[in-house]
Amino acid sequence: MDVEKLFDLNQNVEGILIYNRDQSCTDPSFFYFTQLTRGLFEGSYVFLTRRELTVITSKLEEESARAEEIDVQVFSNPKERDEILRKITSGISFVGINFSGLAHRDFVQLRETLPDKEFVDVGDSIATLRQVKSESEIARITEAARIVSEVGERIPEMLKEGMTENELAAKVNFEMMKAGASAPSFDTIAAFGPDTAEPHFSGGNRKLKKGDVVLVDFGAKYHRYCSDMTRTFFFGKPDEELREMYSVVLESQKKGISSIREGVNGKDVDAAARAVIDSSKFKGRFIHSLGHGVGLEVHDHPALGPNSDFFLKKNMVVTVEPGVYVPKKGGVRIEDDVIVTSDGCKVITTAPKELLVV
Amino acid sequence: MDVEKLFDLNQNVEGILIYNRDQSCTDPSFFYFTQLTRGLFEGSYVFLTRRELTVITSKLEEESARAEEIDVQVFSNPKERDEILRKITSGISFVGINFSGLAHRDFVQLRETLPDKEFVDVGDSIATLRQVKSESEIARITEAARIVSEVGERIPEMLKEGMTENELAAKVNFEMMKAGASAPSFDTIAAFGPDTAEPHFSGGNRKLKKGDVVLVDFGAKYHRYCSDMTRTFFFGKPDEELREMYSVVLESQKKGISSIREGVNGKDVDAAARAVIDSSKFKGRFIHSLGHGVGLEVHDHPALGPNSDFFLKKNMVVTVEPGVYVPKKGGVRIEDDVIVTSDGCKVITTAPKELLVV
Repeated sequence: MDVEKLFDLNQNVEGILIYNRDQSCTDPSFFYFTQLTRGLFEGSYVFLTRRELTVITSKLEEESARAEEIDVQVFSNPKERDEILRKITSGISFVGINFSGLAHRDFVQLRETLPDKEFVDVGDSIATLRQVKSESEIARITEAARIVSEVGERIPEMLKEGMTENELAAKVNFEMMKAGASAPSFDTIAAFGPDTAEPHFSGGNRKLKKGDVVLVDFGAKYHRYCSDMTRTFFFGKPDEELREMYSVVLESQKKGISSIREGVNGKDVDAAARAVIDSSKFKGRFIHSLGHGVGLEVHDHPALGPNSDFFLKKNMVVTVEPGVYVPKKGGVRIEDDVIVTSDGCKVITTAPKELLVV
Repeated sequence: MDVEKLFDLNQNVEGILIYNRDQSCTDPSFFYFTQLTRGLFEGSYVFLTRRELTVITSKLEEESARAEEIDVQVFSNPKERDEILRKITSGISFVGINFSGLAHRDFVQLRETLPDKEFVDVGDSIATLRQVKSESEIARITEAARIVSEVGERIPEMLKEGMTENELAAKVNFEMMKAGASAPSFDTIAAFGPDTAEPHFSGGNRKLKKGDVVLVDFGAKYHRYCSDMTRTFFFGKPDEELREMYSVVLESQKKGISSIREGVNGKDVDAAARAVIDSSKFKGRFIHSLGHGVGLEVHDHPALGPNSDFFLKKNMVVTVEPGVYVPKKGGVRIEDDVIVTSDGCKVITTAPKELLVV
């Protein structure tokens, strides 16, 4: 986390104001800059200058903020909040804000509260910073990845004929938290049989029966940082088509991983993995991007897709997750998290991924 | 869900476009209008006219959308998406959007994609609609409330000396999903001892020991609708101050509930509950609002606080959750979800709330 660099990238900006609204419009950059490990901090701000960082929050979060060594200003009502905002930005003309992390209405309100300021979008610069993870961020993501790996390895023994998708998701979540996660990093996807053909399946009442594909996509949160892993199993012998599907997806995934290293273009990694599927009978059935960053968000920067024109850098953390989906029949997706290195990448989700018939 | 009314409230608006970006800036109104029960629908739109509803989504979600009887248009890339948006709004000058559900950057982009449109904020009208729940919404929220009630009743028997906060949260989440929840509606708060003095505590490594206050704040999601309940227990005999704290909070909570009925002002409900605490030795220690709506969001419309100047209507669903927090010592919060009726309210979270020493 290099605040100096952020100001270097935005020379005219004198102060940066980040607003974290609520669950449906949160700005994870608030936690990136503050590194606060406790509390929700809804309706809270962080104000940054080159040298100082101040959290502006309500009484509700005061106790959580005071637990860390950080400058805190507390308001009891909107009027006090606006006074703090005006005071802390006094003498400043150009205020950086994150256009991507702020609802349009909150932008309009901020313009009313601080009518004499010029607002500059620093969202891209923040995204650039956040793409490359620091040592402590990598430590947290690696621990989150260790948790899903440990749990993923035990999924085969959790599978029982007649259990529902929801029961499996519940069990996976429970095991992640027992292994040290503070929470799942997103709603666990557990899909059986034809439901596996929906990449973002959520539902959950189908019962497991012999011959089903089982797809589990899940992640752990550890000190606010995320992991994200998918494994696909066969509950009973798969037919020839499913077997082939698995082997094509696995080959594609390995191809993707082996294409990653510092300096390679993101879209070329996607293309390398996609070519494996598109040269098989499953051409056109890989209907999403190859991957995405993981960090404070489970879909963090950068995306790894056909339109991702950027160069990988050391210490970016991305997922590699090709999939093939055949409606009514089923789908296979295999996903790992990797840390980009100068000569390749390090796979941090280590659960086995060879074809497994349970 | 009354789309006609939405257009009646915004006479000049010819079409309404709702954008659901991603996990960190989602617009739950997308699901309010579509009532889609499966899929994530990130980067997706719903376009409404008085008579028609169209979902605009990527291939990734196509399968989930087709599972319902709904008009769907599918894009493969941003160019196709923008063409669909231009075509579907052609001949329309005034487009309603939700300023609160859209990131400022997405607003700026939308203005570039549709430069000839006038955008009108229909966010307040949507919030007004969403405040009053339909029969089917109430059925879902009631089921979500039943799930937390069932689990809440069993929390005392889950408590074991030496267990961590995280272990308790894991167990509560597991039991909610076993009871039918698709997921927790937010990260479960399980706090022991002094950690209960932070209303939004998140952390989780403290071990349970005799004499601790135990506070659990948790919610279930059922068909995308939320519940939210808090119970506080004593693990071993509480001292006189804690006992008094509990009794004051419980009295305040009951006072809040008995003040609710159609036509009463929200801030008067808050004031009635707050007066109980402020006339006790814990004056000033109730540091948040009394409650909030629950629905598609766990913090839904309307808020119930000192500044909530609005009149309660039949079939609003709100939480009532006073609390008292004494730093370093501990806190007590008791929270129920209630449906507003013409002559009072119906409490739908039914787990016992009398002082319990485990």
